[in-house]
Amino acid sequence: MVLVVAKIGGELAIRAGQPPVLGELLAGVVVGNIALTGFTGFEGLKHQASLELFAELGVLILLFEVGLESSVPQMLRVGFTAFSVAVLGVVAPFALGWAVSAWLSPEASVYLHAFIGATLCATSVGITARVLQDLGRSKELEARVILGAAVIDDVLGLVILSAVTGLILAADRGEPFSTWTVLAPLAKAVVFLAGSLTLGVALVPRILRAGLRVRVSGVLLALSLAFCFALSGLAALIGLAPIVGAFAAGLILEPIHYKEYVERGEHSLEVLVHPIGAFLIPVFFVLIGVRTDLRTLADPGILVLAGALTIAAILGKQACSLGVIGTGADRLTIGLGMIPRGEVGLIFANIGLSLTIAGERIVDDATFSAIVVMVIVTTLATPPALKWRLSRVPRAS
Amino acid sequence: MVLVVAKIGGELAIRAGQPPVLGELLAGVVVGNIALTGFTGFEGLKHQASLELFAELGVLILLFEVGLESSVPQMLRVGFTAFSVAVLGVVAPFALGWAVSAWLSPEASVYLHAFIGATLCATSVGITARVLQDLGRSKELEARVILGAAVIDDVLGLVILSAVTGLILAADRGEPFSTWTVLAPLAKAVVFLAGSLTLGVALVPRILRAGLRVRVSGVLLALSLAFCFALSGLAALIGLAPIVGAFAAGLILEPIHYKEYVERGEHSLEVLVHPIGAFLIPVFFVLIGVRTDLRTLADPGILVLAGALTIAAILGKQACSLGVIGTGADRLTIGLGMIPRGEVGLIFANIGLSLTIAGERIVDDATFSAIVVMVIVTTLATPPALKWRLSRVPRAS
Repeated sequence: MVLVVAKIGGELAIRAGQPPVLGELLAGVVVGNIALTGFTGFEGLKHQASLELFAELGVLILLFEVGLESSVPQMLRVGFTAFSVAVLGVVAPFALGWAVSAWLSPEASVYLHAFIGATLCATSVGITARVLQDLGRSKELEARVILGAAVIDDVLGLVILSAVTGLILAADRGEPFSTWTVLAPLAKAVVFLAGSLTLGVALVPRILRAGLRVRVSGVLLALSLAFCFALSGLAALIGLAPIVGAFAAGLILEPIHYKEYVERGEHSLEVLVHPIGAFLIPVFFVLIGVRTDLRTLADPGILVLAGALTIAAILGKQACSLGVIGTGADRLTIGLGMIPRGEVGLIFANIGLSLTIAGERIVDDATFSAIVVMVIVTTLATPPALKWRLSRVPRAS
Repeated sequence: MVLVVAKIGGELAIRAGQPPVLGELLAGVVVGNIALTGFTGFEGLKHQASLELFAELGVLILLFEVGLESSVPQMLRVGFTAFSVAVLGVVAPFALGWAVSAWLSPEASVYLHAFIGATLCATSVGITARVLQDLGRSKELEARVILGAAVIDDVLGLVILSAVTGLILAADRGEPFSTWTVLAPLAKAVVFLAGSLTLGVALVPRILRAGLRVRVSGVLLALSLAFCFALSGLAALIGLAPIVGAFAAGLILEPIHYKEYVERGEHSLEVLVHPIGAFLIPVFFVLIGVRTDLRTLADPGILVLAGALTIAAILGKQACSLGVIGTGADRLTIGLGMIPRGEVGLIFANIGLSLTIAGERIVDDATFSAIVVMVIVTTLATPPALKWRLSRVPRAS
């Protein structure tokens, strides 16, 4: 049922000129809030362990797929512009998010402010890439800068998420605030990413080459999934978000590593992983929608928070345009292209739901709903905004 | 870890000239019984809810895939020989299994005898088809009869399983034994299969054709999986094994129904479903192995039961050769080809583990282990036996 609901939502979104992910989300919101009409048949969906498990696995597969789309050298090559765009696109929204949270919820803990700042950081590579592709402009200068910066943003966002999460977990254990508590997750993240990328790039080709000598079928998929889950588990073990590991695994695996498998007639890893993602990923987005409680929006305070967060999210990413130095790329296009928070923002919000300090949740249902509204609006706003701006920027070559 | 263990087991099995499924099973047995050496690190695997869920889903996907391999007309066309081979191949092992159980466990309930009889019924289409394919003889007369009969056997086996399961559930509710309790599941199974096959064949092409007009991607896979899960759920709802529904869904879906999807460049359903199966199915077999407690085999009574069941399983299927009438097919080849119980026998045994009457389990750990031994031996014995016999039967044009 979740799959069919996801496809109906996706189809309606496409017909409205929007990315399918938005439709899956909104379809989930409809199903999750149908109880408002008096029909309570779907209430059980909200806390079903099997859906939860599929959703968790789905998001790992999603980040793995996104990681597969780019490579380690590609990330190192995007250079100064993408990096400065990315850093500004993380610092400005983090500061603005913190400020909005501190202004509207002055009584809340500093952890909520930090967490809300973190949810505004990441740019959704998936949505940005898809919009540029749909418009047929994914190979232009602006597109390259946006995609490069969005990838770096994702990693920086994941690092900040891990740092903030680590901070909250430490506070929950009653440890006093210390600079080390902030730096440890950061250091761990850097060591993990540097270590797994270095070791992975060195070891993966050898392991896959050894797998060629094996006669049992399905070795490529089994090894790749095992690698993805192993890095996810390792990330979780040292206190990082599991998605960091899944993303790193995707970055490391390259078509060149498994070309011998494809040459002997097997399907490429993208073709193999895609159906698993197609099965599991929609469960994640529908479930996020299902958990969005529209009743919380009846509270004007939440609506104000949602509105302020959305403005902070959009304005914060416009700082990115300051990072465009000497390349002649259109700054407004890049600023607009960085707006969608999409799946990554939702992943953050979802992790926030499970964090507590002294038994009290950091992100309550109301704040969660405000974050989801922010994600929906930034995701909704990007395709038309980018389309409008790109129609004014001359098409390259 | 389960995936890697499965592949290592599969590879070792292939190198030993055996089907990979046997290796996955034995690898699971090794992992599950490693505690005998004093290392208890894997004990948690035995009752992990997430592995359980993946295994359950994996077996649905497996039966769906097996169903995809044949079609409704193909089943109706196999004719009198395959049908009589199949019926004899169900009746004789059922009677022999009942007799062995009644002889060796005279104090046990009649339900155990019936259940053990049922586990001896089904022929593993997967293993038989794979062995014939590996030997390059899958298009000969004997192969066609074996495969047709194996498919019918699977359905008959599933029907018997449903009947026996329904009987046990009724007894657990304290209802008195009545002929209706035996006939109701049988009638339900016939109505369900006839109804879903008739309706499915009529509706599925229309639904898939409607899906062509939709613009969102992944419609074929989403609709097919939703159909598979819907029929599985429906089967469970009316008291049949969910795998009956998954198998029926696979039978109904044919390449002709989705050829327009393939023509416009999408992958065929087999290509789409295969990676999902490759991810989930090994979990099922490894978990079955993990749950096989080798310590129970220290009991000579269990070893005797395992041996007697194995002999009953092999001899019972030799009755199949009596069903070969006037086609000139080699009777011994057909009898040998029907031997492997494989995945279906294991599915039955696994369902048996969860059945209770008045809080007492029908199939205890010891009996479960004996059934697994029977499955392992019949699966192990078939490839060499078939190879030997076919080398004496002249190759058909």
